Amino acid sequence: MKIYLAGPDVFLPDAVEIGRRKAAICARFGLTGLYPLDNAIDLAAPDASRQIFCGNEAMMDQADAIIANLTPFRGAGADPGTVYELGYMAGRRKFCLAYSNDGRTYADRLGHLVNVRTEHGRLVDPEGLTVEDFGLVDNLMMIHALELHGCPLVTPAARPDDVWHDLAAFETCVRMAAARSIAT
Amino acid sequence: MKIYLAGPDVFLPDAVEIGRRKAAICARFGLTGLYPLDNAIDLAAPDASRQIFCGNEAMMDQADAIIANLTPFRGAGADPGTVYELGYMAGRRKFCLAYSNDGRTYADRLGHLVNVRTEHGRLVDPEGLTVEDFGLVDNLMMIHALELHGCPLVTPAARPDDVWHDLAAFETCVRMAAARSIAT
Repeated sequence: MKIYLAGPDVFLPDAVEIGRRKAAICARFGLTGLYPLDNAIDLAAPDASRQIFCGNEAMMDQADAIIANLTPFRGAGADPGTVYELGYMAGRRKFCLAYSNDGRTYADRLGHLVNVRTEHGRLVDPEGLTVEDFGLVDNLMMIHALELHGCPLVTPAARPDDVWHDLAAFETCVRMAAARSIAT
Repeated sequence: MKIYLAGPDVFLPDAVEIGRRKAAICARFGLTGLYPLDNAIDLAAPDASRQIFCGNEAMMDQADAIIANLTPFRGAGADPGTVYELGYMAGRRKFCLAYSNDGRTYADRLGHLVNVRTEHGRLVDPEGLTVEDFGLVDNLMMIHALELHGCPLVTPAARPDDVWHDLAAFETCVRMAAARSIAT
């Protein structure tokens, strides 16, 4: 089973090393991890971003599954680039897995970043926009997509000190993918 | 042509009215707008969020195209729930359109929210994570998905005063969808 390794991990200073660690965990379970940075892109080319997109899309099309890192990124929710990829893979009917190293609910996390208040029975943000309040870790589209197109979101019992480098929840996803790989 | 109308519009206090306005614009061009809130959901049900997901997914599967509102939501980037839907529709090989009522680059917008700095030749955020700096309005996955699976992102020449209620860029998307609808 080939697994596309999606996440804002590619933005870390040690992005290449994280990819190597993730691929090594996959290999231990007999699976192949495909990491976006493995695409050979000329970053100085005028169409570098388009080349990255095409490389990532080809890698996703080639993969049987995705493990998306939905750990909150620059705010209360997941990285939109990663979420795009999760949606794409669900649309391609690939097996969808994901983890978040912050298991609090979205509403709880947002409440730590901005003032949220209840107005006419709705939980709203400072702009007056409704805050999803179903007790889920992130937007319901991602949470239920995982349940219905793969495995439920994996979160750690306690938030690790280093959310960007702790791979225990990632490894749980790999175990679930391996179990699925044997079953099918 | 049936068009799924995705966006954080569903979180606005006047979410139902915005949906009506969007559907009316579609109708003027001979198209059918499908708005998530048109799904009949019992919000008091214990599985309300799952019902919303299933209703939205069924609506997307039924649609020929998507127009996603990628106007920045609670930060520098688009709403992840909307981005999930854009990815899903790209994966289903539907016709993908989107607009953002803020045409600044992602890096520019982020720089107005937090300190970004250049470190070893990379633009980074306060956590040290790379900031995409290709001069694009949002994450490259969404921007190039639109180019390659539909039409390029539509942005207004000037940011409207009311980014949540100005539908000029949305209407441009509808015109492009109508042109495509006639051509095929």
